[in-house]
Amino acid sequence: MPYTDTDRLGINTIRTLAVDATFAANSGHPGAPMGLAPAAHVLFNKFMTFNPKNPDWVNRDRFVLSNGHGCMLQYALLHLFGYAVTIDDLKHFRQVDSITPGHPEAHDTPGIEVTTGPLGQGFSNAVGLAVAQAHTAATFNKSGFELINNYTYTIFGDGCAMEGIASEAASTAGHLQLGNLIAIYDDNHISIDGDTKCAFTEDVLKRFEAYGWHTQWVKDGDHDLEGIEAAIAAAKKVTDKPSVIKLTTTIGFGSNLQGTGGVHGNPLKADDIKQVKAKFGFDPEKTFVVPQEVYDQYHAHAAEGAAAEQEWNKLFEKYGQEHKELHADLLRRLKKDLPEGWQNHLPVYKPTDAAIASRKLSESVLEAIYEVIPELMSGSADLTGSNNTRWKKAIDFQPPSLGIGNWAGRYMRYGVREHAMAAIMNGMSAYGTIIPAGGTFLNFVSYAAGAVRLSSLSHQRVIYVATHDSIGLGEDGPTHQPIETLAHFRALPNMMVWRPADGNETSAAYYMALTSKGTPSILALTRQNLPQLEGSSLAKAIKGGYVVLEDKEADVTLVSTGSEVSLCLEAVKTLKDQGLKARVVSLPCVEVFDAQDKEYKLSVIPDGVPTLSVEVMSTLGWEKYSHEQFGLNRFGASGPYKEVYAKFEFTPEGIAKRAKLTVDYYKDVKPLRSPVNRAFQQLI
Amino acid sequence: MPYTDTDRLGINTIRTLAVDATFAANSGHPGAPMGLAPAAHVLFNKFMTFNPKNPDWVNRDRFVLSNGHGCMLQYALLHLFGYAVTIDDLKHFRQVDSITPGHPEAHDTPGIEVTTGPLGQGFSNAVGLAVAQAHTAATFNKSGFELINNYTYTIFGDGCAMEGIASEAASTAGHLQLGNLIAIYDDNHISIDGDTKCAFTEDVLKRFEAYGWHTQWVKDGDHDLEGIEAAIAAAKKVTDKPSVIKLTTTIGFGSNLQGTGGVHGNPLKADDIKQVKAKFGFDPEKTFVVPQEVYDQYHAHAAEGAAAEQEWNKLFEKYGQEHKELHADLLRRLKKDLPEGWQNHLPVYKPTDAAIASRKLSESVLEAIYEVIPELMSGSADLTGSNNTRWKKAIDFQPPSLGIGNWAGRYMRYGVREHAMAAIMNGMSAYGTIIPAGGTFLNFVSYAAGAVRLSSLSHQRVIYVATHDSIGLGEDGPTHQPIETLAHFRALPNMMVWRPADGNETSAAYYMALTSKGTPSILALTRQNLPQLEGSSLAKAIKGGYVVLEDKEADVTLVSTGSEVSLCLEAVKTLKDQGLKARVVSLPCVEVFDAQDKEYKLSVIPDGVPTLSVEVMSTLGWEKYSHEQFGLNRFGASGPYKEVYAKFEFTPEGIAKRAKLTVDYYKDVKPLRSPVNRAFQQLI
Ligand SMILES: [Ca+2]
Ligand SMILES: [Ca+2]
Repeated sequence: MPYTDTDRLGINTIRTLAVDATFAANSGHPGAPMGLAPAAHVLFNKFMTFNPKNPDWVNRDRFVLSNGHGCMLQYALLHLFGYAVTIDDLKHFRQVDSITPGHPEAHDTPGIEVTTGPLGQGFSNAVGLAVAQAHTAATFNKSGFELINNYTYTIFGDGCAMEGIASEAASTAGHLQLGNLIAIYDDNHISIDGDTKCAFTEDVLKRFEAYGWHTQWVKDGDHDLEGIEAAIAAAKKVTDKPSVIKLTTTIGFGSNLQGTGGVHGNPLKADDIKQVKAKFGFDPEKTFVVPQEVYDQYHAHAAEGAAAEQEWNKLFEKYGQEHKELHADLLRRLKKDLPEGWQNHLPVYKPTDAAIASRKLSESVLEAIYEVIPELMSGSADLTGSNNTRWKKAIDFQPPSLGIGNWAGRYMRYGVREHAMAAIMNGMSAYGTIIPAGGTFLNFVSYAAGAVRLSSLSHQRVIYVATHDSIGLGEDGPTHQPIETLAHFRALPNMMVWRPADGNETSAAYYMALTSKGTPSILALTRQNLPQLEGSSLAKAIKGGYVVLEDKEADVTLVSTGSEVSLCLEAVKTLKDQGLKARVVSLPCVEVFDAQDKEYKLSVIPDGVPTLSVEVMSTLGWEKYSHEQFGLNRFGASGPYKEVYAKFEFTPEGIAKRAKLTVDYYKDVKPLRSPVNRAFQQLI
Repeated sequence: MPYTDTDRLGINTIRTLAVDATFAANSGHPGAPMGLAPAAHVLFNKFMTFNPKNPDWVNRDRFVLSNGHGCMLQYALLHLFGYAVTIDDLKHFRQVDSITPGHPEAHDTPGIEVTTGPLGQGFSNAVGLAVAQAHTAATFNKSGFELINNYTYTIFGDGCAMEGIASEAASTAGHLQLGNLIAIYDDNHISIDGDTKCAFTEDVLKRFEAYGWHTQWVKDGDHDLEGIEAAIAAAKKVTDKPSVIKLTTTIGFGSNLQGTGGVHGNPLKADDIKQVKAKFGFDPEKTFVVPQEVYDQYHAHAAEGAAAEQEWNKLFEKYGQEHKELHADLLRRLKKDLPEGWQNHLPVYKPTDAAIASRKLSESVLEAIYEVIPELMSGSADLTGSNNTRWKKAIDFQPPSLGIGNWAGRYMRYGVREHAMAAIMNGMSAYGTIIPAGGTFLNFVSYAAGAVRLSSLSHQRVIYVATHDSIGLGEDGPTHQPIETLAHFRALPNMMVWRPADGNETSAAYYMALTSKGTPSILALTRQNLPQLEGSSLAKAIKGGYVVLEDKEADVTLVSTGSEVSLCLEAVKTLKDQGLKARVVSLPCVEVFDAQDKEYKLSVIPDGVPTLSVEVMSTLGWEKYSHEQFGLNRFGASGPYKEVYAKFEFTPEGIAKRAKLTVDYYKDVKPLRSPVNRAFQQLI
């Protein structure tokens, strides 16, 4: 069907809504919505299938605006199609507690798939959504039941194209031959510093070709609606490659400042707005105007989407009759519930069991649960043998043509791409049918910090398997030994940082990571062996902190995590020889411990007893749980790990020495309050 | 000259040294050195000019091993050429306190230019070294005096090629047309997960072509010494593009496991070592053998390098006669000294001066000092107008052919590439003639965390201009509002995190950042205006913390930073109305405050007075300086910043309320020690 005046009116409605909302907020980015309105209009109306009344329908087409600062484009579309985004919500763009924040946040706004804005993230999330689609299709589709066949569309700008994370993700997507992924590159020659000529002169399409993508160029993205439609249609026909369409547009199309940096990050001036509206046939004096025929057109497409979902629901019901278990499994996954009784598979350890590195303990958990939790997909950023992330019978998630795996495979080979790994996992989690776990060294989780932050902010159940968690990695040396990393991620809201001390604590970490539906986890795991503790259990450890060794007459409490807990237990013996009694607390996850009631916390770290924390990295933050801190506020050293530990006095003697100094120092303080006793509650 | 048996013997000597050292350490990576020995032999002997007796000679060719795990290659070369790396040092590979750590560290080992190992960093550092070369040449070279014309060479592997940071840096280098940069890509088809086929199937050379690089392929990197030589020679002839040579090699060449992942990260087995040595004509029973003719060949090339330096020294002396000021300037820069009296240019503010955002105050500092500190190069990751990093008369560092700058330009357009920006700055700093400063939002310094860590570890004087430092950025919302960021970087050793409260503190931050020769800085700066404080001065602020408002009868000390200091001063008035006396401390840089003597610290945060910290982000770490903490342990909100501050009670009333609770809570504690009073010293 040829495009009509109604189509052009719809496009200009998006533009004027973006102009009005940014003007009302006196803040925001009108340029991208104005330039992208034609492509968005075509994409959403001619290609995308979705039901605004049920944004959670699993087989909906996914859309990600990677240049999230252009979010008024998306909010306008959501409103026009009839999602629960009202015209008043648009009027409250960028206001406190509105559902139209300055960048799209999946948990605030119905119809937003993933939280974007930090550049490069959305594009990489889209790769994850496409991975999830391919995997979910391979797992659930059966002859006569193509349940899962949605497409993932993303729009990205020059900023995303420059970010390394997007390069990593694009290379991954090309390797994986993700045929249902279609990306539109908004080639408008403008970034915040002005003409992209000043920093970005590469040939983007050639680069994507090098990654193995199908590439096209639409040269007049401002007007050529047929060209846009033809390009997307052609992209859909290429099923063995992801597709990118370079769309040359004019940023701020219609403004007096169109095509310049002036329309990127600032509202249009009042005069300019008037001429824009006049040019587009809108009343210059009116704001937030949506012509009825535009609503009609958009609602008609929404109705098609609702009908499509109804069809799908019927198909799914029939599927339930022929494939009862899979039907139940998919329903369960979508509720984020785990299979009944799964936790009975978690390994349990006795003190007499062998000493084992916690990265190996983690592997044992994966071996024990992978069959019972089919939605678990593991992987590693090229450190599989070191991260111990792969169960023995795992099949790689790979395009079948490579002969080394298939789409139903549950093991991801992310390559040396930590940042994209994290963002791809965010996308996989956001799809709704997968729990992703991905490995790297703890030190290199920092490479992924931008995406890890978004796991937390957008409530994704993502598991970071972070091995080689301290100077205990030994010979690789300071470049690989984390010092600041745990403090960093403990300071990140809605992130569980687990540092288990033995096998039972490792099981507890997985228990909490898997059952916390809206919170990601980092599991900090050792390279070196750890003994199984006398006082540990899953039930205790899932409180985040507990007493490993009690002594009601203790002179000092030693609070510790991971590999240092057993060292503290050794130090108790050294202290005993010096006439001092000590109790030992393991705090594998301070975030979970913080959430316990005060009475419990005070039973673990009681009043009246001086407390020393022991953790072989930055002491920052340990003052919250201890009166004194033993840590490492410097970089580590390269050498056999026992020698490195000894160099920094992380020995029973080194701990005992500091415990004694702590006891002496607090003798005269009355009352000696527990550090968990506070004057007021924090804002959380 | 044709290659002889001595050349092949040299190559095999490098291989056997790598084999012996990793075997002795029972740890390390023999595969890369064995595969790369031919290329390294040709590169170092036929092309590179350097004097092992003076590794600091400014015009030496630079070499960066980006796949730093292959560092035995580099240690072997350094030893053979006669750098201060003995055969005993090789025998102590990966031992505590050796100068041959598990990955190359610039400050440990003479001849190592930059600290590598975290993948992608070295490649990006090399781009920075090449930027510095081009800029330094443009600044100092004069007719008849081509003082600076060195090349920068880097070897990188598949891991580096997959990392996003290297993609960012490669795109930047292509844009900048860095003709003196030559990279060798070790194409050995192996990464830790095995065959690169499992994750990395892109066309790397095509990608580099897309970036604007000159590309070549040497198909037999194991044997084709002439081909390697010809490729490097051809690369040198291309002066308007960086060059990459894809070198197909066999990892672990000579081992029974050559060409497999088995030789990547583990020493060879004893049997295998014997057959390798026999194959190469070495005595299988002897270790760490260097044939005399190999020493002779390498020492002869070292002597050529020493002679070249002598020639250069003569040229430089003559240059001193004709270009006295430039001569003195270069000498001064190489000592890392600043020009006499530069600090007198730093802006000074009175309380009656206008309220100004600290990002604008930072701009004023740059305007005031850029002429007097010519080695200062500023820049931004595509946020120039927001970071305020560009002085008005700045010229961009650009290839002249683009018509938008020149090589002598001192303003870098990094594009939206935060991670590469940081690593490029590390390289620029490592060159020795430049102090780089680069801007982004504080929240996106996290994207660069991997490289920021190496600024600290490798003692680079790099300045991160981190604007929009809190929820005070307002409308952009939680995706852009840092919560965990300051805690992260405060936990990083050898990093100064500055959060100035006004103009004088901003000047102090720059004073310390510029005069600390081996410590990088992050300057956290506001988007919103800040009043000039009554009690601030540069002299006070360079102590990292000081009393802004004293009250000898204070009931409470408020400790704060940045934008919250003036809020605390307002809260003092609110508290006065409630009958409470308060004193206020500004702690713009805790790392610098920590380094003051105890007496001073106790004068700032004294015994006997309960202390409340006030900072509008994670409280993690503030227990070290306060009894109670007021912060934000959750994500922020999108809206006008004053409303966001009010939502979280960051108002004089909100502070006063918590101050009162603090006073009440500590009334009964005797003695009430200052938090800076500790039982023992930390390991730093
Ligand atoms: Ca753009
Ligand atoms: Ca390789």
